[in-house]
Amino acid sequence: MAEFTSHLESKSYKTRYRAEFITITDDIEQAIARSGVKRGTITIQTHHTTCGVWVNENEKNPIGPSEELGYASDLRKIMDTFASPALEYGHNDICDAHNASGKRNTHLCEPDENGEIHECINGHAHAQAMLMHVSLTLIVEEGKLLRGQWQQVMLVELDHDRERTVSFLVQGVKA
Amino acid sequence: MAEFTSHLESKSYKTRYRAEFITITDDIEQAIARSGVKRGTITIQTHHTTCGVWVNENEKNPIGPSEELGYASDLRKIMDTFASPALEYGHNDICDAHNASGKRNTHLCEPDENGEIHECINGHAHAQAMLMHVSLTLIVEEGKLLRGQWQQVMLVELDHDRERTVSFLVQGVKA
Amino acid sequence: MAEFTSHLESKSYKTRYRAEFITITDDIEQAIARSGVKRGTITIQTHHTTCGVWVNENEKNPIGPSEELGYASDLRKIMDTFASPALEYGHNDICDAHNASGKRNTHLCEPDENGEIHECINGHAHAQAMLMHVSLTLIVEEGKLLRGQWQQVMLVELDHDRERTVSFLVQGVKA
Repeated sequence: MAEFTSHLESKSYKTRYRAEFITITDDIEQAIARSGVKRGTITIQTHHTTCGVWVNENEKNPIGPSEELGYASDLRKIMDTFASPALEYGHNDICDAHNASGKRNTHLCEPDENGEIHECINGHAHAQAMLMHVSLTLIVEEGKLLRGQWQQVMLVELDHDRERTVSFLVQGVKA
Repeated sequence: MAEFTSHLESKSYKTRYRAEFITITDDIEQAIARSGVKRGTITIQTHHTTCGVWVNENEKNPIGPSEELGYASDLRKIMDTFASPALEYGHNDICDAHNASGKRNTHLCEPDENGEIHECINGHAHAQAMLMHVSLTLIVEEGKLLRGQWQQVMLVELDHDRERTVSFLVQGVKA
Repeated sequence: MAEFTSHLESKSYKTRYRAEFITITDDIEQAIARSGVKRGTITIQTHHTTCGVWVNENEKNPIGPSEELGYASDLRKIMDTFASPALEYGHNDICDAHNASGKRNTHLCEPDENGEIHECINGHAHAQAMLMHVSLTLIVEEGKLLRGQWQQVMLVELDHDRERTVSFLVQGVKA
């Protein structure tokens, strides 16, 4: 009779720019190794509403001097066509000393000494979250993540540079 | 050696309008509490093809007199740009007494006494289901849903007002 | 005390065309039956980056002589509006003997005897993968997949005709 076991850990990532795709497969493999689970699942969950996790190729297509111009550029173009940062969002119409007629007066941080509220202007990022996953459950087999040749797990930043936390829960049997 | 346990329950929701976002986090917390699971996962699964579950902020942005004009309005605009209800869908071209040349003659309910078939005209809702999740698996820790400050679980209606069923399976260990 | 058990198997599918929706519910039911699991979950995971799994209606709407003209046609229209195959993608700008100024020089297969690299021109398929799932975890109850009347599990091809592998992990208790 196999013994069921579980292992939970969290890791923080410092993202650098909007639409950054950060490969976290190695961190996942390490969490699986630490868990001792040989067969089971790993649930990868962000703690946020404007970033996500995704499995795809992590090709850094070297168009130009920056990785930002590469593969992520294709995907950002599609995400921004889906929900453009340039659109008007009710979410961004924040009521503060600089915008007395703003319609949004909930879920706001405290105003500064000038009565200005420094919320992220990120209506597009909430909408783009429909294209990503808050959580992914993937298969663990022989103590490793089951994945095809091109599959990598990525943390995808939809907002500006921020600190992001991701939790990894490994569950299954040890032998 | 930890004891593996599981707990399954279902709950029905009466949705009120298209693109309604119903926060169900409290129901999820109660299901976890009833399960006795301290660490594990909860799988939240709808029984339908034109609604979904989603994790995001549940801000009801009070633009105007109705919550329907708030946060959900931003997201509905994006969803309807993705797959407009005004587009023509083969799915909606139902063959009945009123539309003898209709191309769709499968997966239909019975005609009424006048030969009319009262199917939902919801081709857009099936397409918008690509933006939502039929099922989400989230982490349970210390007997509670693991979630960040702004994360709420929502049932999202993509069709008209209907009765919807969601099942909650909690799996893990009690101590 | 219930005994935790797990069962893993994989199956290959030969897809026939882009935007093919292949119903795999029967294969899933058979994997569950072979596992002996009465209550638990099944995690359905593809090994690829340009196909996905999805739960929806599998209506083959018989518009015209081919299933390709039916229900899948509605969805393909929406997917191609989201990320058109006709757009320019950096991913497709492959550097080889025929395109010396191509910007992509990573993640490529070997050139043929004429220096041509036969990569799939599938930037759109990577982007459309944002609409699908690499992995789905669904509930098993009474030894069967828990699902509503219209729910079917589908493998969705986003690229051309290819061989695709899907793994099924069933976890839970036998009684």
